[in-house]
Amino acid sequence: MPLNNKLKIFNDPIYGFITIPNALIFDLIAHKYFQRLRRISQMGLSYLVYPGAHHTRFHHALGCMHLMQKTVNVLRFKGVNISEDEEVALYIAILLHDIGHGPFSHAMEHSIVNGISHETISLHFMEKLNEEFNGSLTLAIKIFKGEYHRKFMYQLISSQLDMDRADYLKRDSFYTGVAEGNINSERLITMLNVVNDEIVVEEKGIYSIEKFLVARRLMYWQVYLHKTGLVAEQLLTRVLKRAKELSNMGVLLTASEPLQYFLNTDINSENFTMDSLEVFSKLDDYDIISAMKSWQYHEDFVLRNLCEMIINRDLLKIKLKNKPIKTSDLEGHSQALIVKYGITKYEADYFVFKGSISNQAYQIKKQHINILLKTGKIKDIVKVSDQLNFKALSKPVTKYYICYPKNKM
Amino acid sequence: MPLNNKLKIFNDPIYGFITIPNALIFDLIAHKYFQRLRRISQMGLSYLVYPGAHHTRFHHALGCMHLMQKTVNVLRFKGVNISEDEEVALYIAILLHDIGHGPFSHAMEHSIVNGISHETISLHFMEKLNEEFNGSLTLAIKIFKGEYHRKFMYQLISSQLDMDRADYLKRDSFYTGVAEGNINSERLITMLNVVNDEIVVEEKGIYSIEKFLVARRLMYWQVYLHKTGLVAEQLLTRVLKRAKELSNMGVLLTASEPLQYFLNTDINSENFTMDSLEVFSKLDDYDIISAMKSWQYHEDFVLRNLCEMIINRDLLKIKLKNKPIKTSDLEGHSQALIVKYGITKYEADYFVFKGSISNQAYQIKKQHINILLKTGKIKDIVKVSDQLNFKALSKPVTKYYICYPKNKM
Amino acid sequence: MPLNNKLKIFNDPIYGFITIPNALIFDLIAHKYFQRLRRISQMGLSYLVYPGAHHTRFHHALGCMHLMQKTVNVLRFKGVNISEDEEVALYIAILLHDIGHGPFSHAMEHSIVNGISHETISLHFMEKLNEEFNGSLTLAIKIFKGEYHRKFMYQLISSQLDMDRADYLKRDSFYTGVAEGNINSERLITMLNVVNDEIVVEEKGIYSIEKFLVARRLMYWQVYLHKTGLVAEQLLTRVLKRAKELSNMGVLLTASEPLQYFLNTDINSENFTMDSLEVFSKLDDYDIISAMKSWQYHEDFVLRNLCEMIINRDLLKIKLKNKPIKTSDLEGHSQALIVKYGITKYEADYFVFKGSISNQAYQIKKQHINILLKTGKIKDIVKVSDQLNFKALSKPVTKYYICYPKNKM
Amino acid sequence: MPLNNKLKIFNDPIYGFITIPNALIFDLIAHKYFQRLRRISQMGLSYLVYPGAHHTRFHHALGCMHLMQKTVNVLRFKGVNISEDEEVALYIAILLHDIGHGPFSHAMEHSIVNGISHETISLHFMEKLNEEFNGSLTLAIKIFKGEYHRKFMYQLISSQLDMDRADYLKRDSFYTGVAEGNINSERLITMLNVVNDEIVVEEKGIYSIEKFLVARRLMYWQVYLHKTGLVAEQLLTRVLKRAKELSNMGVLLTASEPLQYFLNTDINSENFTMDSLEVFSKLDDYDIISAMKSWQYHEDFVLRNLCEMIINRDLLKIKLKNKPIKTSDLEGHSQALIVKYGITKYEADYFVFKGSISNQAYQIKKQHINILLKTGKIKDIVKVSDQLNFKALSKPVTKYYICYPKNKM
Repeated sequence: MPLNNKLKIFNDPIYGFITIPNALIFDLIAHKYFQRLRRISQMGLSYLVYPGAHHTRFHHALGCMHLMQKTVNVLRFKGVNISEDEEVALYIAILLHDIGHGPFSHAMEHSIVNGISHETISLHFMEKLNEEFNGSLTLAIKIFKGEYHRKFMYQLISSQLDMDRADYLKRDSFYTGVAEGNINSERLITMLNVVNDEIVVEEKGIYSIEKFLVARRLMYWQVYLHKTGLVAEQLLTRVLKRAKELSNMGVLLTASEPLQYFLNTDINSENFTMDSLEVFSKLDDYDIISAMKSWQYHEDFVLRNLCEMIINRDLLKIKLKNKPIKTSDLEGHSQALIVKYGITKYEADYFVFKGSISNQAYQIKKQHINILLKTGKIKDIVKVSDQLNFKALSKPVTKYYICYPKNKM
Repeated sequence: MPLNNKLKIFNDPIYGFITIPNALIFDLIAHKYFQRLRRISQMGLSYLVYPGAHHTRFHHALGCMHLMQKTVNVLRFKGVNISEDEEVALYIAILLHDIGHGPFSHAMEHSIVNGISHETISLHFMEKLNEEFNGSLTLAIKIFKGEYHRKFMYQLISSQLDMDRADYLKRDSFYTGVAEGNINSERLITMLNVVNDEIVVEEKGIYSIEKFLVARRLMYWQVYLHKTGLVAEQLLTRVLKRAKELSNMGVLLTASEPLQYFLNTDINSENFTMDSLEVFSKLDDYDIISAMKSWQYHEDFVLRNLCEMIINRDLLKIKLKNKPIKTSDLEGHSQALIVKYGITKYEADYFVFKGSISNQAYQIKKQHINILLKTGKIKDIVKVSDQLNFKALSKPVTKYYICYPKNKM
Repeated sequence: MPLNNKLKIFNDPIYGFITIPNALIFDLIAHKYFQRLRRISQMGLSYLVYPGAHHTRFHHALGCMHLMQKTVNVLRFKGVNISEDEEVALYIAILLHDIGHGPFSHAMEHSIVNGISHETISLHFMEKLNEEFNGSLTLAIKIFKGEYHRKFMYQLISSQLDMDRADYLKRDSFYTGVAEGNINSERLITMLNVVNDEIVVEEKGIYSIEKFLVARRLMYWQVYLHKTGLVAEQLLTRVLKRAKELSNMGVLLTASEPLQYFLNTDINSENFTMDSLEVFSKLDDYDIISAMKSWQYHEDFVLRNLCEMIINRDLLKIKLKNKPIKTSDLEGHSQALIVKYGITKYEADYFVFKGSISNQAYQIKKQHINILLKTGKIKDIVKVSDQLNFKALSKPVTKYYICYPKNKM
Repeated sequence: MPLNNKLKIFNDPIYGFITIPNALIFDLIAHKYFQRLRRISQMGLSYLVYPGAHHTRFHHALGCMHLMQKTVNVLRFKGVNISEDEEVALYIAILLHDIGHGPFSHAMEHSIVNGISHETISLHFMEKLNEEFNGSLTLAIKIFKGEYHRKFMYQLISSQLDMDRADYLKRDSFYTGVAEGNINSERLITMLNVVNDEIVVEEKGIYSIEKFLVARRLMYWQVYLHKTGLVAEQLLTRVLKRAKELSNMGVLLTASEPLQYFLNTDINSENFTMDSLEVFSKLDDYDIISAMKSWQYHEDFVLRNLCEMIINRDLLKIKLKNKPIKTSDLEGHSQALIVKYGITKYEADYFVFKGSISNQAYQIKKQHINILLKTGKIKDIVKVSDQLNFKALSKPVTKYYICYPKNKM
């Protein structure tokens, strides 16, 4: 099929236009596996805090691909050799890197599909598509798995400066309206280069990297780990856990077929078959939210109340502390519930719990951000920055939370 | 309850911050009727064309209230007397003006709730809330119904220059990324004034009004009446119509309880009871999309195919024409389907149809945009603009469309 | 000299980055003739109305070149053949199209260099540079003069949809803060195409064209013809006229050498020599403003007062009318001045005068905006737009003004 | 004079609209002392690096006042008592805080007015205006001098989080197009509060403060201390120094009257009279640039060449180092000049020199940024931030530079 018959441009509020580079990618985007991402919110329940945050993984994936196009242009302009096949493989790899996300991934991965990561499922999807598309995704898969010899290509898909972050930080900042989290992805990209097949940042980009890391840190504490979003996610995890528990006990629950499947089946990385993949491909936000809309009238006290809290945004109280919560701090709240509603301690624990969250602005051990000095030398940013203390930034920060019902429950 | 205990600020990507002015409004927003708007997309299926267009009626309603706050400030600054009660009533009226919208309103109102408008349902909601809130909404309702003697208050809720338009044009332009549709709501508001209790625009605002009307026209043709969005909406209307048809024939359909209710009940303005309202308040996008996700595997040829088209975004072909489509133009497509799938003419007509759309940039007859001249006189903008031909802009433009399956169906 | 040694990127608040495409253009930009444009304000005295409007012709010229780069990309993408030589020539032609502007052109051209247009002087500069650069500008000059056989190249330099307008409307809107005048240049460009070597706009671009013309109309009336800006420009014209008059009378005036030259020499298109060009190249805003700063203490009543008004922004009163001003309306003001200050009628007329301004949103006769219909036909937009009355837009609108001193003078 | 006769709104590309709050402030803005700021560039010669950076101190002063209006609203909303008199005084103090800036202040203060700071001159202007306006500025002056008992008012004028910085960082980022330097002034302001008459930042604002400091650091190294801007400023300092030197030697220089005055007079804080102030009020960018335009043809080798370099933007070469430059590194360049042009070592030193620049993101000793913890305690941000190392940020960073002619000189 001729390319230009399929040429397509998406409007994007952030980048203006996103162009689909060729017919293969057009067809991948049109595939129902990829269209499904239109029904998966990028930020889960964060819209309960930031009403604008309804953007989808579909949109994010397109955005990543757009930034990858910019990156290929910049790198070629600087003399980095990237063949046409490599170029297309990069676009495919970044486009599909998140295709294995289920609805409300974090909650899901801590409840009903907890034996298998979304990266693994992404890989399954890519392999399935590679069959359908007669091997056109082979190089993309190789890059995605980190098996291609030109390491920078993998780094563009997954590293501290990958296109995934470059898009999601910008996009999440945009849609939440937390303008301070905005990063200048385009400028960051202009500062990338490749030395010995590894990504480096040119020296003049140091301050931009600093700003990128600080913006990321801000997004973590103000958005991704926002206490209201956190409690909503915890409630959702508990909804799914309770639903699975009830299913296992033989209690009948209204749920879509794909959701039933995962409630009734224990999935892990070994028993995840092509059948599971097919069912998984039918699961999205609509299955989860619809189920909760129904379950808020269920007779089970726990399930009913958890769902009602989320649907009507009438959440648990949450407090953040700098020190670990003592178990004894939970008891009073727990006891009150038990007495008031005649429920068991086990049931009460669904509404009274503690936990911790942590964030690390720069992961010093895992992967480096390398700076290409004007002298030609390459150094880790930790050793280059004259003032911002990257060692401090790489120390994980942990906060502790306690959740319990508001008075009126 | 003290006001500041409930003081709340929303982040908004468009206006920066939206402040909730008082505790009553805080409680209205927290009410499950209003929270439900979080699950109703402002632009229906337009995200199939513009992937960013996932914003909700919840967010739009907050935006309208924010603009109303700006307007009250501007008008008071210009010496217009607005009491505190009137102020709060204006905020409530605009906040709730769209609360009666169901999911995918246009499609709904042409299929399963076609006997009653969303305005009427909004009013029902307001009256129900007025009971719950001990009469605090009485003045708001009076304004909303156009029964308050100070006519400009109604005009701020519903007219060619109301806060509804001022927000949705801006918001839809923002989220779709159709930047050209952007209007400067804040500047428009600074040019409003009140004379004899009617809204007027100061003379220097003429060019801004022109630009507002032209932007609106652009949004209509490029967004609201975009042919892909149009065909998606037509398909959805037919899905709901078919589902109701099958229900009436006793065919079993998977659907949430509230959706079942509306599929099985003929609703019109007379039999819309408090019960209907309660069920209606449980209906949102998730019921519709989830049903379609299930129905795409239904045995009914029509229902199955229509749903699959929407869910996988593999829509009918659509062509726009300036002249009416002849019925004979449909026949070939219709016949091909009948032969290929052994279906009836009636069934084939679900996939082969024609229609028309029209838009009028300025509704000359219905309501005027009045300009306050420097001389103190007030004239309709039609008579004032020196060059832009408002008479031309007020002539409705009609386009005709034909839809039929792509080859591969 | 190798290209990448000279590679340079400019930061631009509007487009992000502007890239200099090659070494020749780098050298042209570095040339003192072009650097001089840094000292010539794009909008003359408009900063007296819009305090942000201090951008220069230098910046505008770079912006035009940037848009031309976008256009070349879009057209090539659509299959329009543009050779590398043509590409560079287009960049040079648009970069230098305004190089012949003097300081406060409008005022200058109505006072001290009134025999020669800035276009002619631009051409003189280009020819001088062509000598210095050994003929590298030959094709650019041919295009600039409209003598190249591929007419669309000239149209990109000078027409109703040229890169000049595409940049200045956007830039002036941006820097003045008149956000409503903002046009989406990038989107307009994506809708351009070439048929038979002429520029056409694709059919789907009609609404964007409408919006462009309405935005332009808005910018004219709210910015370019703003009454305060207008009176400032009229005063400046009179300052220069008076200065020339005094010079001719032998009165000594403090002025820079280049300004002295033009005060003392009657320039027209015939006697404009290479010497004049050299002097002209030394003249910029600083000569004019500095002279006025000095002249506000001159003994001549007229010159002194005119200068003081501009420098301290204490301007004449101006009134706009829809009908021509009668000469008799001036007399009272004139007479008052004569009496109060003992000046002549001739001198008083420097402070009491009338005039007219007009604007035409679409110049129907001069040049067409051609629409490429989906059918392949090409039609003037006047005949295509279904609703916006372009005939009305093409009717010139004229307004009349009267200026006279405020009471306190 | 009634207030609304003078009501005025400025368009601002950054904040949309800036409103003049009352007639007194209207009159101060209209005063020729303040109008003069229209002719003083905020960023000196930075436009040689960032072509958009032509905004003025006039515009910045208005922007500061606008932010102060926001701040007063926010603080009052939080219950901080600010009387009407205090409010107006705050507006005046911030509006006039920079009125004592001369053209290209940094260069000036290191050459021709090096005995007196711009803050002192601002105070002289305020006192002069206080006379003219019958004492209406008394409280503003008290606040400006830090003598008012409510210390937070002074902190809003001058501290690490004052309105001056809040505007100039945002404005300079905007006009240079260095988007990464953008700060969210409005959000910062919403996080301010007052405890014991001192400014504090609410705890949730910590990440915003971090981002503010990192953005500021970025602006310093990428903009304010940009090496090209730096060399331009050094050249300008030397132009003025040389001009003064030549004047003292009796060499005739073309210069405007006010510039002559300062070239011929040694100004310091003791002999700065009302006469000096009056002359100073006539001095702006136009005097300096015009003089250099003329001096580039002067017979003095040093003056001529320095001026030509700036006017034609053909600057010295500059190199930045992390270690101090050795004097011996200068000698070769110096010697080459001496030989080539037959000039003295003293003269050659105008073109061959070294120096250092330094920046401190957070001034730990001078002034604190105090955080109001949720517990009610107040702590320095250094002790609160969990990760960003403010001690590191408060360590001054110094860089060293060497300048010398390019080959072709």
